Amino acid sequence: MSKRTTGPEIERLIQLLSKLPGLGPRSARRAALHLLKNRERLLQPLASAMAEARDKVSVCSSCGNVDTVDPCTLCTDPRRDRSMICVVEEVGDLWALERAGAWNALYHVLGGTLSAIEGIRPEDLAIGQLVERAREGHVKEVVLALNATVEGQTTAHYITEQLKGLDIPASRLAHGVPVGGELDYLDEGTLTQAIRARRPL
Amino acid sequence: MSKRTTGPEIERLIQLLSKLPGLGPRSARRAALHLLKNRERLLQPLASAMAEARDKVSVCSSCGNVDTVDPCTLCTDPRRDRSMICVVEEVGDLWALERAGAWNALYHVLGGTLSAIEGIRPEDLAIGQLVERAREGHVKEVVLALNATVEGQTTAHYITEQLKGLDIPASRLAHGVPVGGELDYLDEGTLTQAIRARRPL
Repeated sequence: MSKRTTGPEIERLIQLLSKLPGLGPRSARRAALHLLKNRERLLQPLASAMAEARDKVSVCSSCGNVDTVDPCTLCTDPRRDRSMICVVEEVGDLWALERAGAWNALYHVLGGTLSAIEGIRPEDLAIGQLVERAREGHVKEVVLALNATVEGQTTAHYITEQLKGLDIPASRLAHGVPVGGELDYLDEGTLTQAIRARRPL
Repeated sequence: MSKRTTGPEIERLIQLLSKLPGLGPRSARRAALHLLKNRERLLQPLASAMAEARDKVSVCSSCGNVDTVDPCTLCTDPRRDRSMICVVEEVGDLWALERAGAWNALYHVLGGTLSAIEGIRPEDLAIGQLVERAREGHVKEVVLALNATVEGQTTAHYITEQLKGLDIPASRLAHGVPVGGELDYLDEGTLTQAIRARRPL
C-alpha cells in the first residue's frame, strides 16, 4: 500500500506473507486480515508453530529430509529396507512418495538438479554424499525418482555414471499414462513411452 | 499426511497454514517447505511479524479498522474530513478504498452484513455504533459502500432507515461499467444501471 492505512507491523506481515508460494500481494492481504480476525484461533497458534519450527526443525545430515531429529525418523526406522535408496530432487518429492506409501526404504534429497543455465554443478548438490552413502551402506539399488524434465534427466544420467564405478545398479521411475489420466490430454512423449513399455494383460 | 514422514511440528505448521484463505492442503505443504528452506530470510521474520501483530494490533474502537493504535491512524488524521463517514462491510474494503485514494474522510466497518440465512441480526453488526457516531459527530453524510449483493443491499436499506430518524442523508456507490471493463462480459443488471445513469459528454 502506498498510503499508510494501517500500522507498519501489518504492512510488514502482508509483505512477508506475499513471499509464500501460492500467495500474491492481494491474497497476502486477505490472509493477513484473516489472521487478525482470528487472533486466538489462528494467528497465535501459527506464530508459535513457526517459532517452534524455526527452533526445532533441521535438515537430516544423512538423507536431507527435514525433521525434528537428526538423523530423521525415516533414516532410523528399523522397518525400512536399508539396502535401497530413492533419490529425489526436493523434500516435497519425498513427502509425495511417502503420502503415496510408494517406498519403504531410504531416501536421498539432492536439493535440486544440475543446470548449466543456472550454474548448478554436481558439487552444489548432495551427489557426493549419495555416492558415499551408497558405497558405505552396501546399497543394492539406487532408484532415481527425478522429475521427467531435461534437468532431472541430465542429473539422473550424471548420477548413473558415478554409480557405475561402484558397480551399484541405478533405475528410474516408469513412464506412462497417469492413473486416471485421459489419453487425449497427454503429450506425445508420454504416449510413445506408454506404448513402448506396454505390459501384457 | 497419514503416515508420519516428518515431526509433528511440521505437520502442525502445514495444518495451520492450510487454514489461510488461498492456501489448500497442497499449497500449505509447499509453503511450509519454502519456509523451512528459507529459515533466516522468511521463517524467522514471519514468526516475529506474527507475534508482533498478535501483541500490538487491535481493532479501532471508533471505526473498526485494525491498527497498532486506538483510535486508528485514519480516525485521528487531522487532514481528513470529519463530517462524512464511509460504511464498509469489512476491513479489506476499507483498505481497497484507501489504496484507490478514493476517500479522504472517516470510515465505519460493520463487520459483515445482515443475513437471515446465517442468522446475522443488526445487533451482531456495528450498526448501533454507526448511528451513535453519526449523531454525536454532527455527520453530514453517510456513504454506504457495501457490496452489490442481496445481503449488502438489505443492510444498506436497513441503515438508511435508521439514519432517516436522525435526518442524516445516506448515499450509495454508483453502479456502472468498471473502468477498463468490456460490455460483452458484464451482466444485464450492470448494463441496465449504466444506461439509466448515463452522463452527458
